[in-house]
Amino acid sequence: MTHLRYGGDYNPEQWPEEVWAEDVELMRRAGVNTVTVGVFSWARIEPRPGERDFGWLDRVLDLLHAGGIDVFLATPTASPPPWLGHRFPETLPVDFDGHRLSYGSRNQFCPSSPVYREHALSLVTDLAERYGGHPALKLWHVGNELGQVCHCDVTAEHFRRWLRDRHGSLDALNDAWSTAFWSQRYGEWAEVIPPRRAPYLINPAQRLDFARFCSDALLECFVAERDVLRRVTPDVPATTNFMGLQQPMDYWELARHEDVVSHDWYPDPADPTSHVMSALSFDLMRSLKRGPWLLMEQAASAVNWRRRNPPKPAGQLRAQSVQAVARGADAVCFFQWRASRGGAEKYHSGMVPHAGTDSRVFREVVALGADLRALAPVAGAPVPASVAVVLDWESWWAAQLDAHPSGDFDLVTRLRDFYEPLFDLGVTVDFAHPSGDLSGYRLVVAPNLYLVRDAEPLVSYAAGGGTVVMGFFSGVVDEHDRVHLGGYPAPFRELLGLRVEEMVPLGPDEVLTCASASLGEFTADFWYDDLRAEGAEVVATVVGSGADGVPVVLRNRYGAGTAWYVGTRPSPDFMRRLMDRVVAEAGAGPASRPPRGVEVVRRGDVLFVVNHGTSEVRVDVPGDHVDLLTGASVTGSVALGEFGVAALAPALPSGG
Amino acid sequence: MTHLRYGGDYNPEQWPEEVWAEDVELMRRAGVNTVTVGVFSWARIEPRPGERDFGWLDRVLDLLHAGGIDVFLATPTASPPPWLGHRFPETLPVDFDGHRLSYGSRNQFCPSSPVYREHALSLVTDLAERYGGHPALKLWHVGNELGQVCHCDVTAEHFRRWLRDRHGSLDALNDAWSTAFWSQRYGEWAEVIPPRRAPYLINPAQRLDFARFCSDALLECFVAERDVLRRVTPDVPATTNFMGLQQPMDYWELARHEDVVSHDWYPDPADPTSHVMSALSFDLMRSLKRGPWLLMEQAASAVNWRRRNPPKPAGQLRAQSVQAVARGADAVCFFQWRASRGGAEKYHSGMVPHAGTDSRVFREVVALGADLRALAPVAGAPVPASVAVVLDWESWWAAQLDAHPSGDFDLVTRLRDFYEPLFDLGVTVDFAHPSGDLSGYRLVVAPNLYLVRDAEPLVSYAAGGGTVVMGFFSGVVDEHDRVHLGGYPAPFRELLGLRVEEMVPLGPDEVLTCASASLGEFTADFWYDDLRAEGAEVVATVVGSGADGVPVVLRNRYGAGTAWYVGTRPSPDFMRRLMDRVVAEAGAGPASRPPRGVEVVRRGDVLFVVNHGTSEVRVDVPGDHVDLLTGASVTGSVALGEFGVAALAPALPSGG
Amino acid sequence: MTHLRYGGDYNPEQWPEEVWAEDVELMRRAGVNTVTVGVFSWARIEPRPGERDFGWLDRVLDLLHAGGIDVFLATPTASPPPWLGHRFPETLPVDFDGHRLSYGSRNQFCPSSPVYREHALSLVTDLAERYGGHPALKLWHVGNELGQVCHCDVTAEHFRRWLRDRHGSLDALNDAWSTAFWSQRYGEWAEVIPPRRAPYLINPAQRLDFARFCSDALLECFVAERDVLRRVTPDVPATTNFMGLQQPMDYWELARHEDVVSHDWYPDPADPTSHVMSALSFDLMRSLKRGPWLLMEQAASAVNWRRRNPPKPAGQLRAQSVQAVARGADAVCFFQWRASRGGAEKYHSGMVPHAGTDSRVFREVVALGADLRALAPVAGAPVPASVAVVLDWESWWAAQLDAHPSGDFDLVTRLRDFYEPLFDLGVTVDFAHPSGDLSGYRLVVAPNLYLVRDAEPLVSYAAGGGTVVMGFFSGVVDEHDRVHLGGYPAPFRELLGLRVEEMVPLGPDEVLTCASASLGEFTADFWYDDLRAEGAEVVATVVGSGADGVPVVLRNRYGAGTAWYVGTRPSPDFMRRLMDRVVAEAGAGPASRPPRGVEVVRRGDVLFVVNHGTSEVRVDVPGDHVDLLTGASVTGSVALGEFGVAALAPALPSGG
Repeated sequence: MTHLRYGGDYNPEQWPEEVWAEDVELMRRAGVNTVTVGVFSWARIEPRPGERDFGWLDRVLDLLHAGGIDVFLATPTASPPPWLGHRFPETLPVDFDGHRLSYGSRNQFCPSSPVYREHALSLVTDLAERYGGHPALKLWHVGNELGQVCHCDVTAEHFRRWLRDRHGSLDALNDAWSTAFWSQRYGEWAEVIPPRRAPYLINPAQRLDFARFCSDALLECFVAERDVLRRVTPDVPATTNFMGLQQPMDYWELARHEDVVSHDWYPDPADPTSHVMSALSFDLMRSLKRGPWLLMEQAASAVNWRRRNPPKPAGQLRAQSVQAVARGADAVCFFQWRASRGGAEKYHSGMVPHAGTDSRVFREVVALGADLRALAPVAGAPVPASVAVVLDWESWWAAQLDAHPSGDFDLVTRLRDFYEPLFDLGVTVDFAHPSGDLSGYRLVVAPNLYLVRDAEPLVSYAAGGGTVVMGFFSGVVDEHDRVHLGGYPAPFRELLGLRVEEMVPLGPDEVLTCASASLGEFTADFWYDDLRAEGAEVVATVVGSGADGVPVVLRNRYGAGTAWYVGTRPSPDFMRRLMDRVVAEAGAGPASRPPRGVEVVRRGDVLFVVNHGTSEVRVDVPGDHVDLLTGASVTGSVALGEFGVAALAPALPSGG
Repeated sequence: MTHLRYGGDYNPEQWPEEVWAEDVELMRRAGVNTVTVGVFSWARIEPRPGERDFGWLDRVLDLLHAGGIDVFLATPTASPPPWLGHRFPETLPVDFDGHRLSYGSRNQFCPSSPVYREHALSLVTDLAERYGGHPALKLWHVGNELGQVCHCDVTAEHFRRWLRDRHGSLDALNDAWSTAFWSQRYGEWAEVIPPRRAPYLINPAQRLDFARFCSDALLECFVAERDVLRRVTPDVPATTNFMGLQQPMDYWELARHEDVVSHDWYPDPADPTSHVMSALSFDLMRSLKRGPWLLMEQAASAVNWRRRNPPKPAGQLRAQSVQAVARGADAVCFFQWRASRGGAEKYHSGMVPHAGTDSRVFREVVALGADLRALAPVAGAPVPASVAVVLDWESWWAAQLDAHPSGDFDLVTRLRDFYEPLFDLGVTVDFAHPSGDLSGYRLVVAPNLYLVRDAEPLVSYAAGGGTVVMGFFSGVVDEHDRVHLGGYPAPFRELLGLRVEEMVPLGPDEVLTCASASLGEFTADFWYDDLRAEGAEVVATVVGSGADGVPVVLRNRYGAGTAWYVGTRPSPDFMRRLMDRVVAEAGAGPASRPPRGVEVVRRGDVLFVVNHGTSEVRVDVPGDHVDLLTGASVTGSVALGEFGVAALAPALPSGG
Repeated sequence: MTHLRYGGDYNPEQWPEEVWAEDVELMRRAGVNTVTVGVFSWARIEPRPGERDFGWLDRVLDLLHAGGIDVFLATPTASPPPWLGHRFPETLPVDFDGHRLSYGSRNQFCPSSPVYREHALSLVTDLAERYGGHPALKLWHVGNELGQVCHCDVTAEHFRRWLRDRHGSLDALNDAWSTAFWSQRYGEWAEVIPPRRAPYLINPAQRLDFARFCSDALLECFVAERDVLRRVTPDVPATTNFMGLQQPMDYWELARHEDVVSHDWYPDPADPTSHVMSALSFDLMRSLKRGPWLLMEQAASAVNWRRRNPPKPAGQLRAQSVQAVARGADAVCFFQWRASRGGAEKYHSGMVPHAGTDSRVFREVVALGADLRALAPVAGAPVPASVAVVLDWESWWAAQLDAHPSGDFDLVTRLRDFYEPLFDLGVTVDFAHPSGDLSGYRLVVAPNLYLVRDAEPLVSYAAGGGTVVMGFFSGVVDEHDRVHLGGYPAPFRELLGLRVEEMVPLGPDEVLTCASASLGEFTADFWYDDLRAEGAEVVATVVGSGADGVPVVLRNRYGAGTAWYVGTRPSPDFMRRLMDRVVAEAGAGPASRPPRGVEVVRRGDVLFVVNHGTSEVRVDVPGDHVDLLTGASVTGSVALGEFGVAALAPALPSGG
């Protein structure tokens, strides 16, 4: 990469053809160099089964290419046309309650449907063959925001095939699903079905395997398309756009099968702390394939799908876009180029808003184009991190099944509990799969690892000198959601030097007072483990209440390394103190400790500073820099106003 | 009309025949002169398909007539008998989720069902032929509270026929529905269906057309019955009872097809401000056909369908009934004469309560009969108004579709925001359709006109010297829910002298501080428009916060008239100050400015004063009057206790 | 009974056979003498239709017997295997909305299904024949927590047969169901169906009869199994486990058909007042067959099905178990012996927890075994009570139908309103059916008797010298949910000496101030009756507000007895004062008036004192006692710490 891509979803089929030329002219004015075409074009390309209408798309691609605009071409398979659902109702998805969903929206397909897949692949083949050689084509954009789930009988048959592959025999499935409980033993394969609405709690291992299956079924859909595309255009990479922390698909697995990671991200303008979860999602995207990624969709201003959808305040779009680049994005793109006049998403803002080009939004879009040109030097550059946060989709699926100690347990919240203090300290993190290679990190944080197939990688990592921090409700079950017996968290008990007898969820108004000799007093809520140290040093305990003296933060030397356990949910303030110490002890710093609301992150040799707040701040940046965005020299510190940003490259040594 | 009708729904089939004679005697004692018979009698009249049992109804009508009681005879088509649903399940409605609803309640029919319609019309024909000449018959009461919606396949076929009529071609429908978005293009008519449960947002133009269709389908049901009745009894008028501000049916359209407007209204006794919405609903009813209307149903005391159903406090029934007469009612009727012993509405109060005639409720019913006799002079008289509030059902349907800037936007609340200050000022208003004749009004208030087919009537009205007040989220879309581009509200931008770039919904706890040089400081919430004046005078702006300086109230001279824009939701106190000024400038007064909670409204030459509060008040009424209710002379002012009322006719000039 | 049974559900099929021997050893260590086997074993015993696999169960029962452990053997019919739902989908239940529920959970059967019943009875027959003579077998445990409801067409046919039996003719049904309202008259039997999702309110009499039918259908299932068991093993008693205050089944009726009452009870450890409802449920269980009952299930610590599931604090299990024995339990059992490793209830604690035997929970389980051995002297002893609280399932069903004066009316809350002050006073109560024999009681409390078939028993009871206390919303309807006319509560007006004209539900924030000359001032909320005394003495009235002077507590001499009426919901403090006086006047004491949170109850000649609070208390216990649990002498008073208990037997007179 020698530059950053800038652009957005371009849906010319929504507009009269005479608008297209104006579009290209405005794109050039804004510095747009890439657009995604065709995401929702199935019905336009194939208005009736088997027909093909490519003429309009030929003209669009030629026009873009003539204007110097590259194209990410979508396979339009996420949104089948009405005729598919009408003629083949079996392609429509069935929900948990047994309702077959209708067309009239989007995404209405059963991922297991051979009829859907056949129609989709036929179209993808023709699309690839027609445009594989088009000079504007730079990337295949497969489908859109995969996440469909179906409970129909076709899915059931597919699920059974998948289960046979996974478990081998029905006896193994009965064992894995603990069907001896509640008289659920299956006597023949035909009896096995997806989870469906039932009188009471559903078998959790069945639900867990169904979550795995759903992810795999979508992966099959993706791979089937990718294989067609690879066959026809072996040199054109393929992606499918992710959506941050979404449960339905295991993004680690999906990322393995795509060529580049792309990401759709929509922070809420009404949330003044949204930049924290943005950073988290960007770090995750960068980690999935350990490299640059594409911000495939963001909004120029408001979205349309929240209860309240305010526009972005002036300047926020720039701050958010630079934040993405700072954390590894090589593209900054939008849904969508031109705000729709009609349809379900017309109040989703566009780069060209309803108000037209004489508008704050369009002026910011033009300015952002110039900023991104100035940031070209970071394209392709890595973002260094010495801390990894562990995230595992199957553990997530299992941890949020029902009938657990707390129905309020939310993995994303738990990730944030540990991520935010690191963010506040200015420590950049990667994400890692628990079975992945952790050797490059000084510190590995596991906010939650409820399900553990194999504890060995983490245990070895610590034994070899690494530092591990682990949160509660970890190490509880195996891959079949069966409890590791003998006291929680059995697979990590030795590593952590402790034993949990019972887990204690707290009421919404319950607050614990805790104390640590080294880290001071603090409050905690939500949960605590009734545990005792078995070798670990007790760093903090509950004070008073029925839990007086129960350890809540522990530290255990293990082999050449260290393992911390946080058995409650301490206040954010304490979490910053704790992580500051952990980072320092692990040598995982430096911690830049920027002012609150300010983000500091290094990409390549450029130090990005972003003020997500509304007050002016001054941030220390030791040494001499040049701000790529302004060309100004910066020495020692930089002042940033509301949504201010700086991209500080090392100043060339001056003569003299 | 030379008198006011007084009575209620009379359901003698619920009681042994020996009770009927007592009923008539008690009606006479209470001054009841009219009852509605047969609303729920289908199964009694037609116990098995094709049978007819009219004997009991003959006796009821004869008995009533002998007692001097007039009859509104209902076509009992709102509640089909069990045999219809049992034998013809296709007549049962299907909901959005695809559930076919059961009988065992009421209203269980698909308005598009030919089987339902055929059975209904056959019964209506026989009913009309049997009783068309009965001397007690004064009015046909068609069905009951129309509002059924169905999503079944029969409805789908009907919907397609309706869409063909409306759009002509499938290309036109695809264009109108913006189906280029999300790959929704229809390739043949058979694919087009009602909105049904789908994976995500439904096409809004499809939903809007379906709302129109549902209203029209019910209208067809009404017209089909009315045509039978007109053929048989050309001189007997027909109505169907409305329910105030109900979304499913366009009451403007329905009112055009009936002979007189009738209204069911149930204020909540637990709401001390319910009289405001009562007034609003009564003004709407009066406006639908520009004349007197019938209060067809109210409750003598408690209802049964709210979460909590307290009885009316002593005196409130009288105040509410007189309020209806003051605002144009020529009838005051109840659901129902005798409270049921059994069934789903037995806790809905009756004129004769469970406790019997030795009860406060029955005594109030008797007293009300006398009051209504005293108010006979106002029967048929008009209620003058120089202000019109604009209300358009299709705009309402569109404004409350989903995926909008604010999911909390509620048209009824917006109407009240503008109606209540006028009510508080003692200014009587009419309602008007935006394409209606506005020439008789000094002031036209459009709290919201989200969907605009044709801005011309309002614009011309202002150009010709009228004053218009418009609220935010107006002028946004065309009849197909497609945005009018170029800055909101495009069709009214010239009229209003301003341009909105973005719409800003506020959070539930966000409050703006605003200031106006002429009208003082105030707070506002819910929403503001990010707008700039393009010619309009800025009357008020936001002060402080991120929106500092944004105009929120503007005033524009346009032609010979004036247009005001209110781009936020000011506090009620400011709205009173603002509307006081607007009314004064427009010459739309006089504003009587009664004490809080007191209603002052003129009908014919009688000035009604109603105290809806619990404290004694004294109200200025310049001149000499006689209170029709008491015969007392009133000079200069009148004192009213809790729920006190006065009906002040001009005193005849005394000799001397 | 010469001892108390101690044990729990034992599900060895969840564990490898090598664990079984350890189980028996641990049971013996804990003092377990009885376990329930087979509750969820259908699929294990009958893995395919018609097969039988009893070998494992033979080994389990033999092993238990060899270890000296008695067995309650379950008929595993509550949880059919997957093959039943797969091969016979008509056995799966259909919910109110029309969804056919799936297997994959438990309880998925239609109680009316002949296919289900045939398979269930065939299995029960074989089970009885195989194990009827096993020496370990002491009790049949039929099904599990009966409560299934189904709305399918097979159920509809069964419902119609039941209705024919009940009503005789369709005319009688039409009359009973008040079908004249809303045109619901049935013309033939085939039209009659269960309540199903409909456009609006469902006929309440239909819903009431359906509630009766559902209870009877489950009763049929129970009786069918019991008859098989009685035929094969006439000497082995049968029970089915109840769940306290559950609406679906009329436990009075079910208890009549079983040999002993058993009870599953799960107080929430997060609720510091849960012991009150525990006491209430225990008193109810004791009353159902007027004798000892079995605590068939409780949790050793946490459960898994609430939103938050904390463990029990140390000591609470003991206090709760002793409480059950004090109120008549002859068994203290658990769900389940060993906490599951997998499945939907793995976080439901077991007597052997996940942490194993080196755990607080297991240590408490062992200690409890010793405590129960010490309490053997009370086995079989009665619990004397001179107060009865009236509870009637069909009135409960009717009182909680919809479209009532208050949708927040909850019978269980109403029971507690009257039960808790009696509990606080240390007055032990029985429960009684309103048509039952009340002659043995000094005081009968009817917190609510909405539906009254026959007022005579209560009226006669008072006339004969008894004291009755009745709460509001009583005596309103007959057995067909038709109002008793003439002023509420018509059947009790003479008894109570008053007449209610209207019922007034209050808003959630409304509080009445009330005053009583003899009992002082108090507040009240939720409801008041607009009533006037007709002979009764007014004990308390509302003061101020719109209800000033309305009587809310009245006392009426009737025959040789007294009737009190409480027409509002007074504060708990006033309820204690009121019930203290009522108990004293009725001679229904003595009231021991223990400290708050302390329970005092006599069983046989043992006085139980239980401290449910966390503070140490001293409780007066006149006379000389020996604490069965400790052997300590107690004279005059006893001190109890957190969750402390004492079981005080009279001290044998010492020589001297």
